[in-house]
Amino acid sequence: MRIAIVGLGLIGGSLALKLTEKGYPVWGISRNPATCKQALERGAVQGCGTELAQLARFDPQMVLICTPLEQVLATLAALVPYLSAETVVSDVGSVKQPIVAPATELWPWFVGGHPMAGKSLQGIQAAEADLFRGRPYVLTPIAETQPQALDAVKELIAAVGAEAVLTDPARHDRAVAWISHLPVMVSASLIAAVSQEGDPAILELARTLASSGFRDTSRVGGGIPQLGLEMARHNRQALLTALHSYQAQLRQIERLIDGEKWDELLRVLQRTQQEWQQFPVNHPREILHNLGGGNG
Amino acid sequence: MRIAIVGLGLIGGSLALKLTEKGYPVWGISRNPATCKQALERGAVQGCGTELAQLARFDPQMVLICTPLEQVLATLAALVPYLSAETVVSDVGSVKQPIVAPATELWPWFVGGHPMAGKSLQGIQAAEADLFRGRPYVLTPIAETQPQALDAVKELIAAVGAEAVLTDPARHDRAVAWISHLPVMVSASLIAAVSQEGDPAILELARTLASSGFRDTSRVGGGIPQLGLEMARHNRQALLTALHSYQAQLRQIERLIDGEKWDELLRVLQRTQQEWQQFPVNHPREILHNLGGGNG
Repeated sequence: MRIAIVGLGLIGGSLALKLTEKGYPVWGISRNPATCKQALERGAVQGCGTELAQLARFDPQMVLICTPLEQVLATLAALVPYLSAETVVSDVGSVKQPIVAPATELWPWFVGGHPMAGKSLQGIQAAEADLFRGRPYVLTPIAETQPQALDAVKELIAAVGAEAVLTDPARHDRAVAWISHLPVMVSASLIAAVSQEGDPAILELARTLASSGFRDTSRVGGGIPQLGLEMARHNRQALLTALHSYQAQLRQIERLIDGEKWDELLRVLQRTQQEWQQFPVNHPREILHNLGGGNG
Repeated sequence: MRIAIVGLGLIGGSLALKLTEKGYPVWGISRNPATCKQALERGAVQGCGTELAQLARFDPQMVLICTPLEQVLATLAALVPYLSAETVVSDVGSVKQPIVAPATELWPWFVGGHPMAGKSLQGIQAAEADLFRGRPYVLTPIAETQPQALDAVKELIAAVGAEAVLTDPARHDRAVAWISHLPVMVSASLIAAVSQEGDPAILELARTLASSGFRDTSRVGGGIPQLGLEMARHNRQALLTALHSYQAQLRQIERLIDGEKWDELLRVLQRTQQEWQQFPVNHPREILHNLGGGNG
């Protein structure tokens, strides 16, 4: 299977590295010639061009659109003239409802995808072949999705060592609102609240004393602003619903503290401790914490 | 300087290990004979007893009360009959206003302390000599505090490799409300909100897809319930003030998303990204993230 990757950032670059390692012929497209150069130097791609038209020469059987979310549909529309019949196209955008139906109308061999992997750094220089190993990789087929296209993307997921998770675009977007987009707003608000403390001595002291508990809780709120904006913009309704429910929970905790209902607060915290353990991602990490992570 | 440590949990045990390593004669007191046995086996203490009365024999020049917060004052009151004149007493409680003035009245050689270190595991088995290395260790002297007592505790802080940070009890409590107690409630509310998602398929999907971003943001809210309760109970007013300000920040973000004020939301997230970098604890970690941490 000849695979083209459009957009060689962290995700596109990591897919390219792993697929090349697995023996697939991989071509890259990046608007930036320096990115192409790096992708070639790192051995991520066999060839690389700056124009979609150059893909015709490679004649890919699969094209992965790894651009920022806002460019996925425009990239697909621009790509269509250069695709052979039955070329499978997939994307890696973190929101699926605004993408999947219109993309499938543009190209019936489209399959919406979202690999649940990332890191704080971006760009081809941060790419790594094993980024997806053992991570969930969501596919969101709809009624119009071609079954063979879905099978081809499943083969790709197996090749990069990820685990395919199938759901529909709406459920995907609600789930990521909870575990990815809501945390960014919760965490950003924490940083914003601390930072507007009115007594400069207390603010300075808070910064000095901040330990791993604050570091972890504030991390995603201190991340790349454009990513947070993209989430809010394209998953607005699901995020607003999540924010609404979150605020109700926080108000309940505030009421218990205000009313000194200590037994009830303890029960809430006992429940959150139990519920926290229901998330598979919290299990491997326990080992790390026990070895050295602090929460002082 | 002969040092006695009352309460051999994570903090007391780690102090004992390091001070013994540094050559101080260290005795321990624990209600639990099994803890004494472990402390002796690990070489953390030279001797260990289950009753405060046993301290008279050791005649310590300094006593560190490392019990849970709620027991600090009662422990000090019970300890007083066995103390020689000018024996320095300090504690490690995470809230200082309810402790320092009454403790100083009970014993004028008392100095309030709070080492900013910890980890998820508790108990003597989790203790480690280097727990405090490079970490802030807060002291909260008041007008009545004996200067020689303060100097003695500063010597102890240097011995365990920590950095003394001096402030008053009220400022300490407001600073830790921001960076330690508020994050627990923010994080617990996140877990609680996700967990009451009404569609079981979406809840299951959210749990499956949760990645390092959710893991980090939810970690302290999934921690030991009694610690969260203790914070809320003893630092209630500062925590309520912090919660109030936090909710205002969150509502602002919600309003920007609801009103699709994307430029303003971007500016808020740009600000939180910059403010996040003002916290020293966020700098060493960056290296770790770049090496392997995800935020997908």
